[in-house]
Amino acid sequence: MSQPPIRIAIAGALGRMGRQMADAVRADPRLVLVARFHRPGIVGEGLVSRDEALAMADVVIDFTTPAASADLARFCAERGEPALVIGSTGFDAAELATIAKASKTIAIVRSGSFSLGLNMLVGLVEKAARALDRDDWDIEIVEAHHRDKIDAPSGTALMLGQAAASGRGIELDTVARRVRDGLTGARPAGEIGFAVLRGGGIVGEHGVSFCAEGETVTLSHAAGDRIMFARGAIAAALWVAGRVPGEYDMHDVLALNA
Amino acid sequence: MSQPPIRIAIAGALGRMGRQMADAVRADPRLVLVARFHRPGIVGEGLVSRDEALAMADVVIDFTTPAASADLARFCAERGEPALVIGSTGFDAAELATIAKASKTIAIVRSGSFSLGLNMLVGLVEKAARALDRDDWDIEIVEAHHRDKIDAPSGTALMLGQAAASGRGIELDTVARRVRDGLTGARPAGEIGFAVLRGGGIVGEHGVSFCAEGETVTLSHAAGDRIMFARGAIAAALWVAGRVPGEYDMHDVLALNA
Amino acid sequence: MSQPPIRIAIAGALGRMGRQMADAVRADPRLVLVARFHRPGIVGEGLVSRDEALAMADVVIDFTTPAASADLARFCAERGEPALVIGSTGFDAAELATIAKASKTIAIVRSGSFSLGLNMLVGLVEKAARALDRDDWDIEIVEAHHRDKIDAPSGTALMLGQAAASGRGIELDTVARRVRDGLTGARPAGEIGFAVLRGGGIVGEHGVSFCAEGETVTLSHAAGDRIMFARGAIAAALWVAGRVPGEYDMHDVLALNA
Amino acid sequence: MSQPPIRIAIAGALGRMGRQMADAVRADPRLVLVARFHRPGIVGEGLVSRDEALAMADVVIDFTTPAASADLARFCAERGEPALVIGSTGFDAAELATIAKASKTIAIVRSGSFSLGLNMLVGLVEKAARALDRDDWDIEIVEAHHRDKIDAPSGTALMLGQAAASGRGIELDTVARRVRDGLTGARPAGEIGFAVLRGGGIVGEHGVSFCAEGETVTLSHAAGDRIMFARGAIAAALWVAGRVPGEYDMHDVLALNA
Repeated sequence: MSQPPIRIAIAGALGRMGRQMADAVRADPRLVLVARFHRPGIVGEGLVSRDEALAMADVVIDFTTPAASADLARFCAERGEPALVIGSTGFDAAELATIAKASKTIAIVRSGSFSLGLNMLVGLVEKAARALDRDDWDIEIVEAHHRDKIDAPSGTALMLGQAAASGRGIELDTVARRVRDGLTGARPAGEIGFAVLRGGGIVGEHGVSFCAEGETVTLSHAAGDRIMFARGAIAAALWVAGRVPGEYDMHDVLALNA
Repeated sequence: MSQPPIRIAIAGALGRMGRQMADAVRADPRLVLVARFHRPGIVGEGLVSRDEALAMADVVIDFTTPAASADLARFCAERGEPALVIGSTGFDAAELATIAKASKTIAIVRSGSFSLGLNMLVGLVEKAARALDRDDWDIEIVEAHHRDKIDAPSGTALMLGQAAASGRGIELDTVARRVRDGLTGARPAGEIGFAVLRGGGIVGEHGVSFCAEGETVTLSHAAGDRIMFARGAIAAALWVAGRVPGEYDMHDVLALNA
Repeated sequence: MSQPPIRIAIAGALGRMGRQMADAVRADPRLVLVARFHRPGIVGEGLVSRDEALAMADVVIDFTTPAASADLARFCAERGEPALVIGSTGFDAAELATIAKASKTIAIVRSGSFSLGLNMLVGLVEKAARALDRDDWDIEIVEAHHRDKIDAPSGTALMLGQAAASGRGIELDTVARRVRDGLTGARPAGEIGFAVLRGGGIVGEHGVSFCAEGETVTLSHAAGDRIMFARGAIAAALWVAGRVPGEYDMHDVLALNA
Repeated sequence: MSQPPIRIAIAGALGRMGRQMADAVRADPRLVLVARFHRPGIVGEGLVSRDEALAMADVVIDFTTPAASADLARFCAERGEPALVIGSTGFDAAELATIAKASKTIAIVRSGSFSLGLNMLVGLVEKAARALDRDDWDIEIVEAHHRDKIDAPSGTALMLGQAAASGRGIELDTVARRVRDGLTGARPAGEIGFAVLRGGGIVGEHGVSFCAEGETVTLSHAAGDRIMFARGAIAAALWVAGRVPGEYDMHDVLALNA
């Protein structure tokens, strides 16, 4: 209550995600938006330079590009502050090394998905897969997306499969069953199956079922719209402010690694 | 209420389904079990001959073999009664012709699945597929069965797919999408997709989704145990007693063809 | 293909629904938006007068107020055209009588909900309730909506309950079970139960389950966003163009009354 | 593999659960059934005395009565072995104290539900409730059971509600919303809602949803038959054999408390 609000700067402020983040930060009483910056040389209309922004903020939220995020991480580390929330994806090894090095000096939360619910689900799936005997419990993953999605299974479904495999101490590739058609024979124990639905405007639904004789446990997530990503980044910002240096992910924010 | 109970004879009375049917008939106050018979020469212990059985019954319930069912149909037709409920499966063309001919003289309900719920679902799926525009509504069918099932998709899933295709006036084979894996590209309009899950002891679950921009309609069925088949045969017996000659199926019993 | 597009005029063009309809009509190649009008005296910026609009259109789509819609219906009837799609709600008896009278001369589709999926569901629920014996099949309706909804069960859930009751030839009020808490005793046959969930931003989910020994049939609808209402009105416009005079609803459009 | 099988004795061997347990133990190669006993004075037909049974077993599985289980625990503790798996329910304070005291000397797993899946679910619900902010995430619990169940919500639904409340550090009674009917107003943050369905032969289904703006996480369990209870007791027996003294529950067995 009497806690002063966390001061937020937003990188990539002119991008689609930068604008959504700014709206979300402004709407949250636990935060105050102190600065928005975009690229060197682009100021005005409410934008400041990166130097000015970093001087004012407790946390920078950054949904930009791998190169820009890595550069920002190194620069913040040299300054010794502020903390970072990074939502860019597609980093190469060199960029990841830069961020890892920066995290010796500052606290960084980095994630490929800031949906709180999905990150929660990943942690729960791993936990359940660890606890439930593979000979008794069959793991099946089903996902549904809109008709314009061009790949299958979804990246998130595969991430859930990896969490399940990790809980069982195996590699997903050795047990994944991505297709069943025709005379399949009985299901081998240990298999992790995938099923895919495509249709209409479904934003994204994922379910992981653990099926035994006589009972089934299902852990599922349904996405309705994109606002959840901004909300997840805000949770990360609140969590990382004032945190000791280190590289964290959403599982830390959600205390799922504890 | 004051209606006298329908008199039932059971063919194949020593078989697994024959015994379940006898229990179910005995438990239903709208019916009375007047005779059980098995094969020529097998009598005693409550069994009577086929002739005796037919003389006493309003309806014979027959879950035996294609050959025995066709023979029974011809025999009943020669006598001019009783009505028949046939649950045998796997008929060849000659046997089907025999039954069709018999149905000129007696009323016969024949079905490959006496689950009331599944037959209902098939009718609803066809109706929905007819009403919903194929360019706006994508049809996806998902089914889940126990780990020992050896084929995919299930026969019932394919039957649901045929009902959907029939509602759209097309052949299922021309639009069925049985596998999605890797870079699939966007979903073509008109496709009917299948997704398969296998695990644990799931008796049988089927869902047919009609997915549009902004909304999804799902029609689904979950089976818990086998008792539903006996209940469906009883509904057919109540419906067929005293009916005019003809060959009927469960859609007639459920008034889904009306 | 060679069919010329249906000419659409939009009433209440400055309202929220009027604007959405205009966007949806413009995006549909089977239609052409020929005129938009609002209220007498409001023209310019693309708006024309009502007289001009009616002279150009095959169908007017009208989401306004009960009084305005009734007046429009009478006026179109006097002219002898065009056909009408009315989405206003809350009519009083006099207004309904005006519309009924107008429908002697022109074709009118009027509905309280243009969601194709929900209207489809209502028809399927009535059909299933009619076919499935009340002593064997228990009907349960569950609905989920966002946290800001202030009434329960939802109007749509009650409409689904009425469809189920109607299929069984009874009044919903005599069998509705809206609350179960504490020592309820066993469920009476024939009851239609309601269950309510509230949370987050759920747009609207409805499910009607028919539960028997050993099997359950569930018919459900999930709404994702509001675009479905515009799509339903377009389906109605395509259907009503050139139709013989009469008052129709979405069940006619969907051929669910056939 | 080279591990010798755990030696199991079954208490209350003539009871319904005792018989099911015996079948399940015999079917499991990791266990060997060495003795069955019932009550003092009842021997023969494969039954031995309690003394004989305890002398042969690594673990006794006991689904009897609170008084008999407490007595058995004290007796085993005096002997210093074997370990116990107790599935009786309805203990009073004195009996619980007796068991607690016995657990200073022997290892005891005691649980009101040996369904592995449901115990897993309880742990996951508590974990999720702890991690997800109460102002953003609304918790709703829905359960469905057969038509003969006489109380609502189910004991398991309330147990899940307590797990959720515990995760949030509050008492369930202060936030439970068991009924919604009529003009309810908007949903208060922090509430934990219950919804109840009754119908047909549904063995038992439970779902806990965490609903936010734009996303929903649902953790659910479906029971198909009773065999899962025997399987859970076997998992407990395998876990408790050779364990240090203490009183444990299924969360320990499933490593959910770690």
